[in-house]
Amino acid sequence: MRNARVSYEALTTLVARVFEHRGVPAKRAVVAARALCHGDLTGVTSHGLRNLTQLYLPLFAESRVEPDADLEVLADRGASVLVDANRALGLWAAGEAMDIAVERARSHGIGMVSMRNCTHFGLAGFHSARAVRHGMIGIAASNCGRQRIARPPGGSVAMLGTNPYSIAAPALPSHPFVLDMSTTVVPTGRVRAAARAGGRIPEGWLADDDGHPVTDPAAFDRGEAHLLWLGGRPEAGAYKGFGLGLMVEVLAALLAGAGLGPSAEALLGDGGPSGRDDDIGVITIAIAPDVLREPGEFRAGAEHLFGSLVRCPPVDDGSPVRYPGWLEAETARENLRLGVPLPGWLLDELARVAGEAGATVPAPMGEDA
Amino acid sequence: MRNARVSYEALTTLVARVFEHRGVPAKRAVVAARALCHGDLTGVTSHGLRNLTQLYLPLFAESRVEPDADLEVLADRGASVLVDANRALGLWAAGEAMDIAVERARSHGIGMVSMRNCTHFGLAGFHSARAVRHGMIGIAASNCGRQRIARPPGGSVAMLGTNPYSIAAPALPSHPFVLDMSTTVVPTGRVRAAARAGGRIPEGWLADDDGHPVTDPAAFDRGEAHLLWLGGRPEAGAYKGFGLGLMVEVLAALLAGAGLGPSAEALLGDGGPSGRDDDIGVITIAIAPDVLREPGEFRAGAEHLFGSLVRCPPVDDGSPVRYPGWLEAETARENLRLGVPLPGWLLDELARVAGEAGATVPAPMGEDA
Repeated sequence: MRNARVSYEALTTLVARVFEHRGVPAKRAVVAARALCHGDLTGVTSHGLRNLTQLYLPLFAESRVEPDADLEVLADRGASVLVDANRALGLWAAGEAMDIAVERARSHGIGMVSMRNCTHFGLAGFHSARAVRHGMIGIAASNCGRQRIARPPGGSVAMLGTNPYSIAAPALPSHPFVLDMSTTVVPTGRVRAAARAGGRIPEGWLADDDGHPVTDPAAFDRGEAHLLWLGGRPEAGAYKGFGLGLMVEVLAALLAGAGLGPSAEALLGDGGPSGRDDDIGVITIAIAPDVLREPGEFRAGAEHLFGSLVRCPPVDDGSPVRYPGWLEAETARENLRLGVPLPGWLLDELARVAGEAGATVPAPMGEDA
Repeated sequence: MRNARVSYEALTTLVARVFEHRGVPAKRAVVAARALCHGDLTGVTSHGLRNLTQLYLPLFAESRVEPDADLEVLADRGASVLVDANRALGLWAAGEAMDIAVERARSHGIGMVSMRNCTHFGLAGFHSARAVRHGMIGIAASNCGRQRIARPPGGSVAMLGTNPYSIAAPALPSHPFVLDMSTTVVPTGRVRAAARAGGRIPEGWLADDDGHPVTDPAAFDRGEAHLLWLGGRPEAGAYKGFGLGLMVEVLAALLAGAGLGPSAEALLGDGGPSGRDDDIGVITIAIAPDVLREPGEFRAGAEHLFGSLVRCPPVDDGSPVRYPGWLEAETARENLRLGVPLPGWLLDELARVAGEAGATVPAPMGEDA
């Protein structure tokens, strides 16, 4: 097919149908479909629908996900809850975990869910932003289970995943603050997207065994380059990126008793990526400002803070100052109106999996190069 | 005086005496002295005793700190507490805030203190690590009140402070995991220490108005260069460093209703640093794994995780893999035994302020070049 824009509603309905066909209960399938399509909706295509065939459907095929597993509460202390996700679909389970955290924050000011045995949860920022609808601050993070991609500084064996971390908070109307980041310089999805596009990547993403920069993105999957931490070089803060990766490993996985990157098994690795992203650990935290302060005070402060930021005189008059989450909100608004732009190869993939579920790809709203 | 090593106990006793002389109650003065000397003890000299005359004593002289102010609880929701520090000394108040969070985590699994109207709290990692003594995970962060040092990406006016963030957790025995970081590439203290030493700094710390790298550290205080975010260049993750700076602004200051960097006042700035670090916001969070899981499980998992990390085959046999906090623990152990090394100029400064408090600098344990 050719590149085209597809209605967001029709797209999520289709993806929900695909998940349902694999055994996911209907309501959960809708939540999971929205989580997955959020990447394409907001322009973060590395974490969007391309992962349906590359990441999620293989989980079903290999029985690594339990489509209808329920979350099991292992311990409940009011403000904090320990949950076993029983291999439920992370795209859905992480949202549930955030909703429980939000509910607990309503009475305790803060709420936390620590979850083990989860599967890939997609975009961390989709889950953290759920709290913002309730006027709260949300934090969502996940390790990569036992999958190891990045090496500790000075180490020759992969030990940690890209360990995504996200925080979201109310900011300007319809434009929440949403920081959604891998703790490596970029997630592997960005490297693979660059490899697929056939271009070069900037220095600072990958290095070879001698520490020299590698700008060929395909070198990563050839095992000739490894992913660097946020901060890049030690003198520019690589230990901070590594430390943030460890922070996520501790908060999301060690706390919950989930699978860990660094382990005796990891030491058997040959330097390249090792292990599988099973038994993923997830943490969600919600903080309710209005429970601690007069209702409205926090919201007014947030508008002052973020309103001042976007009025900062720019270096370049054509490029106003923005904050994380702004661009994604603008992109989503446009794509809701015009349709979500999808490349032809992805539409072909979608047509194939839609057919298996007895569905068809929605008619395009318009074409998009 | 010449460079010398001074007994840690004698040093903290002296510094406590200096704080007491300025009106700080005796017990608090001891806590504040330990917080301040922690920098020199662990080798993080940019945040150590040099700040006594450069940062803290001026706060007393200008009546910007209330030596005997009590913390005032504005709201208490069990797991979370909102506190007005009433301009108490942050070196002491942040520890109190962590102790309250730890106490709340003991029953709720998680505890949070959100604090406004505080003063500079020194090393964030000193406060987060308090939780580790109780087998807990600790988080401590602070904005810089209304002091603005760093510009948002694409902006020409300083809007945010260096916004320190720290997380600490049990790891290997006597070697807790302690990540303590500014969200800029480096804190201003590192730039000024380099300027004082007369050397060059690596590319990636400072840039001029045109975005070109600046390697003369003195250019910062001449107003000819501004501090960059962790990640440095946009394509290497500068938006993540900026986002983490905003995260701290939101969690530490916006939540508490403390002074903010980004504000109408900030827009009047000329590009260089502006505002004062008054009405600082602080957040402390403690998470108690043993409240959610069987006692000992978390500790065993932590030893497995961090024990595997340090056994990672190193690139260079002489440089074993370590994690944030390890080097500081080793340095502290050595300095407790041999004495804390202090440069002659700092000993001279100490002698002067000690004299004002009717005390003397302890005799050296040995000389140190």
